[in-house]
Amino acid sequence: MASAVNKTAHPFTKANLEDLLLKRFFYAPAFEIYGGVAGLYDYGPPGSALQANIIAEWRKHFIIEEAMLELDTTIMTPEKVFVASGHVAKFADWMVKDTKTGEVLRADHLVKNVLNERLDRDKALQEAPADPKKKSKKEVIKPLEATVKEEYESILNRLDEYSGPQLGELMKKHAILNPGTGNEVGEPVEFNLMFASNIGPVGNNTGYLRPETAQGHFVNFSRLLEFNNGALPFASAQVGRSFRNEISPRNGLLRVREFTMAEVEHFVDAADKSHPRFKEVADVKLRFLRKEIQSAGKNDIIETTIGDAVSCGMVANETLGYFLARIYLFLTKIGIQPARLRFRQHMDKEMAHYACDCWDAEIHLSSGWVECVGCADRSAFDLTQHSKATGKSLVAQKPVDPPRIIHSTEPEWNRKELGLTFKKSSQEIMKKVEALPVEELEKIRAATDNEPYKLDLASGECIELSPKYVKIVDKTTKQTVEDFTPNVIEPSFGLGRILYALLEHSYWARETDIARGVLSLPALIAPIKVLIVPISSQESFKPIIQDIATKLRKAGISSRVDSSSVSIGRRYARNDELGTPFGITVDFASVSNGTVTLRERDTMDQRIGKVDEVISVVTDLLEGTCDWDAACGRVPAYSGVQAIEGA
Amino acid sequence: MASAVNKTAHPFTKANLEDLLLKRFFYAPAFEIYGGVAGLYDYGPPGSALQANIIAEWRKHFIIEEAMLELDTTIMTPEKVFVASGHVAKFADWMVKDTKTGEVLRADHLVKNVLNERLDRDKALQEAPADPKKKSKKEVIKPLEATVKEEYESILNRLDEYSGPQLGELMKKHAILNPGTGNEVGEPVEFNLMFASNIGPVGNNTGYLRPETAQGHFVNFSRLLEFNNGALPFASAQVGRSFRNEISPRNGLLRVREFTMAEVEHFVDAADKSHPRFKEVADVKLRFLRKEIQSAGKNDIIETTIGDAVSCGMVANETLGYFLARIYLFLTKIGIQPARLRFRQHMDKEMAHYACDCWDAEIHLSSGWVECVGCADRSAFDLTQHSKATGKSLVAQKPVDPPRIIHSTEPEWNRKELGLTFKKSSQEIMKKVEALPVEELEKIRAATDNEPYKLDLASGECIELSPKYVKIVDKTTKQTVEDFTPNVIEPSFGLGRILYALLEHSYWARETDIARGVLSLPALIAPIKVLIVPISSQESFKPIIQDIATKLRKAGISSRVDSSSVSIGRRYARNDELGTPFGITVDFASVSNGTVTLRERDTMDQRIGKVDEVISVVTDLLEGTCDWDAACGRVPAYSGVQAIEGA
Repeated sequence: MASAVNKTAHPFTKANLEDLLLKRFFYAPAFEIYGGVAGLYDYGPPGSALQANIIAEWRKHFIIEEAMLELDTTIMTPEKVFVASGHVAKFADWMVKDTKTGEVLRADHLVKNVLNERLDRDKALQEAPADPKKKSKKEVIKPLEATVKEEYESILNRLDEYSGPQLGELMKKHAILNPGTGNEVGEPVEFNLMFASNIGPVGNNTGYLRPETAQGHFVNFSRLLEFNNGALPFASAQVGRSFRNEISPRNGLLRVREFTMAEVEHFVDAADKSHPRFKEVADVKLRFLRKEIQSAGKNDIIETTIGDAVSCGMVANETLGYFLARIYLFLTKIGIQPARLRFRQHMDKEMAHYACDCWDAEIHLSSGWVECVGCADRSAFDLTQHSKATGKSLVAQKPVDPPRIIHSTEPEWNRKELGLTFKKSSQEIMKKVEALPVEELEKIRAATDNEPYKLDLASGECIELSPKYVKIVDKTTKQTVEDFTPNVIEPSFGLGRILYALLEHSYWARETDIARGVLSLPALIAPIKVLIVPISSQESFKPIIQDIATKLRKAGISSRVDSSSVSIGRRYARNDELGTPFGITVDFASVSNGTVTLRERDTMDQRIGKVDEVISVVTDLLEGTCDWDAACGRVPAYSGVQAIEGA
Repeated sequence: MASAVNKTAHPFTKANLEDLLLKRFFYAPAFEIYGGVAGLYDYGPPGSALQANIIAEWRKHFIIEEAMLELDTTIMTPEKVFVASGHVAKFADWMVKDTKTGEVLRADHLVKNVLNERLDRDKALQEAPADPKKKSKKEVIKPLEATVKEEYESILNRLDEYSGPQLGELMKKHAILNPGTGNEVGEPVEFNLMFASNIGPVGNNTGYLRPETAQGHFVNFSRLLEFNNGALPFASAQVGRSFRNEISPRNGLLRVREFTMAEVEHFVDAADKSHPRFKEVADVKLRFLRKEIQSAGKNDIIETTIGDAVSCGMVANETLGYFLARIYLFLTKIGIQPARLRFRQHMDKEMAHYACDCWDAEIHLSSGWVECVGCADRSAFDLTQHSKATGKSLVAQKPVDPPRIIHSTEPEWNRKELGLTFKKSSQEIMKKVEALPVEELEKIRAATDNEPYKLDLASGECIELSPKYVKIVDKTTKQTVEDFTPNVIEPSFGLGRILYALLEHSYWARETDIARGVLSLPALIAPIKVLIVPISSQESFKPIIQDIATKLRKAGISSRVDSSSVSIGRRYARNDELGTPFGITVDFASVSNGTVTLRERDTMDQRIGKVDEVISVVTDLLEGTCDWDAACGRVPAYSGVQAIEGA
């Protein structure tokens, strides 16, 4: 039986997690030896493996499960593409400059940080009123008035709705200064977030690094449609690097200038946004934060099934709803805590320029709620824009069923007679007549040789048309297909944010030792699945280690051997920090009896069994066909546990 | 028994392959609807899958097999990093401008193209002498003189050795003009190939897009070493995007501005470049083209084992040799033809600024030999440069065994007496004495209170030192570890070039039909492993298709259903173009008997069997535990083959 584990013995401390992540090289500031660059991070071996495992699971959950068409498009993009997509004009944030030092700050973040700090200080004051005897403080902090507090909270809840000039007004009204220097800041100005460069040796060909992978899908729409044999709906998918030249990135992996995204563009007929697999997810319960609630300055959650959310119109359509549920299932499968996940609808003024509805999957972290996945209905915006810019048709076809019967009244020419009589003017005559309204055509139909129809030409000449030259006939045509510009539903994943959220949700410290951090990452995505530890550097252990490593590799299980000279307890602890779910220890009994011990990360339980039996148990544990309790039934407890852990 | 297939019935035609690749969306010019951008390509679904499979195999062959430390570092890099690495100063090509149109051309490519064209024209002339009656040609082409031809060939073989000014002289000497316009070109000037941008909103922080992933490894060296518990040798590995702002890219995937690389940086002690696993590859035979041969203007190949190549000194050391063999094994495993693969050593002047030896794995294509993998010994260049630039120590430690005994002669101070007598001058005195040569220290040792040692201070004062203040003693220390800067061996893979080479080596056309292109990609890397085709759109086929698709997915086999309305023959042909090795056809016998047919791509053989048996055969074929001949023994021939293929 597994031991009970208290994962909440110590409150979460961000600094401890960050120490661990740096020490174990999950990630580190890029170019650290050069002093680093804000917003750029490198992933070390465990971070790279964790990211690769998340991507592999994402591919399975989305691309393979739904037979999506995968793409790999370029990052460097010529300017005209982002002019058409609206990014050159609108993909910008508002920044302000410190009036004295010239330091640049992002305007909305400045407001947020200062107001939050005032509220926090006020809260601290309520809980522990300032001691009036302590006169050393120059500034006496007064409690905030109730109306001021309410106003601050309302501003914070609606922050994404303010324009640049409105942010400027807020700063003046609430005397918001640069907290680093105490100086005033200037008026907010716009800064485009795309990195610019120049393509080729001649200096007039601006290129931008893409801020999202999406445009790479849209510009290839026709080829994708053809690959899919012309059938809609279909989805394309891409995992790749994108760039945003953030104004002053500060929050670790949460706001970076270069990041890996995973994006799906689901192309669908706007007239029918139902989804054939919607019923499979209809009962999934999600927590929603609607735009109306936020615009009222509140943040109340509605918890309901996606089926109900779509049928009551809160979520606009089945396809959008299907993806929200699939996003939820993906995030919780890889280890995000369901209670710390919500779907927040964008407010109208907050929406990106291309979107007509958008829900963010937000994950709760120590710093608050953070957007990790956006799920936008981009309508036909992008395809329409690129079609306009290039003159290329970006449409799909659908049957008109039943076929549309179209009645029309048209001139039928006797070109020979027309040419003989009117020579070079024939073309002009035909063009003019074909542009006439139906009532004029009826007059032509009624004309006779004696009473011809009179038509003025551009030259001023007036000619006469009789049935000899033209007859007016009624036509009936059947339209069986029609063109339409598909709409796009876009689930867009920021993998770095998800990765960091997973680390926060997985981190805890042993009851007995706050310094002993553990990452309880699900085995599915843990960077390394098994640690192999020889109890000492004994020569006779080496072939056994080799044998175990080879067998694990054959079973497709990633393992790592730690034969360093530190105590086995320290090696286990190092491994708990890496989130490795299982440890296999080789000791003298391995040589004499062929047994090894199996250690479970969270409980520190140790079991004992023959090598092949232990590998078989581990394989089943990793495939999810067996849990730790069941595993304990297959391999007996090892009695020397405490002695080893304490070493 | 399998049918015989003649894959060389038609000579290879590049245009046919390129048509196929575009039509099936392996890749296409990026931003095609905008007219495209030279040197940028997007991969469609089959290209993305092929690339993903090549990367997966690369990870297995290198990272997993050798327990390398994987990294994922940023593309955007601050200028100072590339100043230190030498790229800001030296990562450039020579370009020339058309003196009239301003068109920019790469200097070495211009020389190469013009001389090659002259040689080709001369060859054509030899084979079919110009008809003197045809006087329509303005210019009468004369055969090249033997010495001129020899000179051209020698220039072409040594092309990489010429500097920019030398290329300029060659152009003048051989009257090389812009072939597109017939105009003269100007003097060659250097153009740095890195894309530049600006990091952040303030305009003084130049960043470059990395032209290789390597620097991301080097700047993280200390963290990697720590992760590896301080032990050397170890290798880091990274798969990622890099950028080179090529002057005028023209050769499809062979010369692009954005590309995916896979790089290994193997850190090793320069004093011992032996490799523990070298013996495993010693018998692998490779084809070598040495630098001495090329510098003599020749291109003769030496074919020998890597064991011999290292022992005779042609390849500098075991580690370099080990990687050359591993590169060979990787490339041939994924489908590169061994006879069209050679290892070419860089000539001294051709070598990148950071390398001290380099061998390129070159693959023979319709356009000639193309570098696809570079394997360079970068020595300690990069770590030394970054250490100099940052003042950070980038070294590893190794034991000194037996420990080094170091004898030294040192002053031992009586600080109290010194301070009492000399006060503030004490520091200066100690510093001066410690810097004295041994013979002076011996004089101090010999000094007495009566005959003290005299020392001049900076102030001009002369002070006297006696044993009261300082004694000279002999010390013996034992040095057990020493620092060293590791060398780096770097195998660097251009994945786009390898992918294109694979497509050329896999392409052929059916004997009966030149238009019917087939890509005989190995099953290991084929984008899709199995095509599922229903013989018609019969409703009763649908559950069977669903069942087969689910079973294949469970077995980890990627499949695609083609239920489009075109004939089954056309669907098979489409699939041959996608390189899908196996086809499973669902027909009426599937409904009545539970049988399906299994088609092999190259032979077009068709077999018949129950669904589960066919899936089991396909699984074994894909795992390589069974070949087509053996498969034929398990499932009998299907008699309706010809009828179906001809449909």
